[in-house]
Amino acid sequence: MADWLEALDRLAHDRAKAGLTRQLRPRAAGDSVVDLAGNDYLGLSDHPRVIGAARQALEAYGLGATGSRLVRGSTGAHTDLEDSLAGWLGADAALVFSSGYLANLAVVRAAGAVCDLVVSDAYNHASLIDGCKISGLPVRVVPHNDPAAVAAVLAAHPGRAAVVTESVFSVDGDLAPLAALHEITSAHGALLIVDDAHALGLLGPSGEGGVAAAGLAGRPDVIVTATLSKALGGAGGVVAGPGQFIRHLVDTGRSFIYDTAPPPAVVAGVLAAVEVARAAGDRRAVLFRRGALLAATLRGAGFPTRDPAAGVLSVPAPGPEPAVAWAADCRDRGVAVGCFRPPSTPDGSSRLRLTVNAGVPEQDFARAMTVILECAP
Amino acid sequence: MADWLEALDRLAHDRAKAGLTRQLRPRAAGDSVVDLAGNDYLGLSDHPRVIGAARQALEAYGLGATGSRLVRGSTGAHTDLEDSLAGWLGADAALVFSSGYLANLAVVRAAGAVCDLVVSDAYNHASLIDGCKISGLPVRVVPHNDPAAVAAVLAAHPGRAAVVTESVFSVDGDLAPLAALHEITSAHGALLIVDDAHALGLLGPSGEGGVAAAGLAGRPDVIVTATLSKALGGAGGVVAGPGQFIRHLVDTGRSFIYDTAPPPAVVAGVLAAVEVARAAGDRRAVLFRRGALLAATLRGAGFPTRDPAAGVLSVPAPGPEPAVAWAADCRDRGVAVGCFRPPSTPDGSSRLRLTVNAGVPEQDFARAMTVILECAP
Repeated sequence: MADWLEALDRLAHDRAKAGLTRQLRPRAAGDSVVDLAGNDYLGLSDHPRVIGAARQALEAYGLGATGSRLVRGSTGAHTDLEDSLAGWLGADAALVFSSGYLANLAVVRAAGAVCDLVVSDAYNHASLIDGCKISGLPVRVVPHNDPAAVAAVLAAHPGRAAVVTESVFSVDGDLAPLAALHEITSAHGALLIVDDAHALGLLGPSGEGGVAAAGLAGRPDVIVTATLSKALGGAGGVVAGPGQFIRHLVDTGRSFIYDTAPPPAVVAGVLAAVEVARAAGDRRAVLFRRGALLAATLRGAGFPTRDPAAGVLSVPAPGPEPAVAWAADCRDRGVAVGCFRPPSTPDGSSRLRLTVNAGVPEQDFARAMTVILECAP
Repeated sequence: MADWLEALDRLAHDRAKAGLTRQLRPRAAGDSVVDLAGNDYLGLSDHPRVIGAARQALEAYGLGATGSRLVRGSTGAHTDLEDSLAGWLGADAALVFSSGYLANLAVVRAAGAVCDLVVSDAYNHASLIDGCKISGLPVRVVPHNDPAAVAAVLAAHPGRAAVVTESVFSVDGDLAPLAALHEITSAHGALLIVDDAHALGLLGPSGEGGVAAAGLAGRPDVIVTATLSKALGGAGGVVAGPGQFIRHLVDTGRSFIYDTAPPPAVVAGVLAAVEVARAAGDRRAVLFRRGALLAATLRGAGFPTRDPAAGVLSVPAPGPEPAVAWAADCRDRGVAVGCFRPPSTPDGSSRLRLTVNAGVPEQDFARAMTVILECAP
């Protein structure tokens, strides 16, 4: 065997010993597993209007976009979705990417045109961390959800900084103090970049997201990114903000310019999902009721679990092995849950990550709660 | 206006003065524009089998994958596609990403587990350049298609290097000397990473790509990446290579682990496209005949144009303004062509980029050739 493959084998062996091997387990179409692991918070991925719109665009345009947006791939479906997202989020303009990961790479890099420092929350998503890396800017990582730490960095920095945070954090489901952060960034002339992926569709009276719910929609010093693959049930990402920033992305954003546009069918399906989500107060009510019930039930069983800020619950487990066994037992009994262990957890603890999906039938959700409790360590 | 928006306005003004403003022009569904700009080389984006498979998966699974592959998003459609791609390319294993851009970020970074230097062709795609940046490895950029330069770098380097190239280059359409490069990399114990995006589906007797056509399929020191959005008419990317390398990506690849999986409908459509592409010798024959005819016609009109290695032709224009006017006149007469100017061209020249699409009806292709000649500067 080639020596580099032997080296990879040794690395795999080390990961296995540390319990860091990841398993791809295919799921079947229409299986009966109850989903408390995915991010389809409003259950829109199989909503009839979403499927119908996607099917129609598939037949009208074909499957792929056949090129980048600038060369060949920009369809009316793309611009319609951007107009709709900008209106919903209360932003000047919006730009769609083929993945939220690529949107986050683009936004941090673009901030580098007018900023000379990135201040990044310690629990930020991998895509934001890679965005920092790719921007070439100096990066200051600050403790999680600590506005005073952000203020101290900005006060000591003579130039213009970009402060990067999630709104609802992806693993723990807690909410960033967005209003407090914005007070600090605006006082220092800094930008506030917020990844709203886990709040879009859930927070705010019409699901317009965590930034809007914090009263920051349309502020000229706030940039919002989000995925279209969570509450909107599709795929892709979006950046929303002042028109000047979006124009800068169109002209210079490498992960926009040099990437095939997202498929028209996906984009059209997501546009339908936006329309459903804006009017889905009933689904949001189901989600928040279920989240509070699940948290209270787990607390009653001795697992200190906070009421979720949106759709993500973090449940402490006594250690990595019990966490893995807990998740495996749930799966064996037909309930999908997430399991996070070091080094994938920002604070080094092990836990289950549960998500609430308003589209799961009521009796399935009740059964899932029972299974989670019965499998608890 | 906020001062950072004024700064962005000044940058936009500078770009406009330098002719670097990019325009998003939406195209309508079913418009009559003849496509010599996109990358749907075999015309599979609207092939009935592709549409049918996508529609079926859309109805079976819903629109989005609802989570990352590891948490919730891995469906039978994803693994079926990976098996099919690995078999076609003659590789041990394959892993699908939601974008070719993300696949390229992952592959260069993963090479960093066993390499301590990246040697990168000067004309490589933005995603490979960003992959180099994100890998944190030292990078040596070598002149375009220059095996001797690669050999000199490897000879002077005591550690293990990864040499990164495209097979068919995206702007000029020329072919890398893959066999010569592999002779050099294997002599020095280096890896060869090849982005086969513009050759997959086109080169090789069954369209298995530029790496296979160079006799390098399945070599244990060769990694192939490709997009699923060009000849396969869909969206997404793939990495194919030794099982150990793919396992390393599953366990550690950030742009795989922390990204929502590509939609099952897209993946199923691409799987159908692979099956069509493997048997599409007739479409490949049309493509090569048209490419040679187009190049000969342009040469006859005084534009030195090489026969394309696959589906991309590069046509020199007398300068940036004539190139823009040429492309605009074609567009006004219903023919979409690409136009590249500095700094988007690797060598600083201006030119049209024409692509051949075997799915364009014969009379439309003939008309497009006439239009391109009549609009020539």
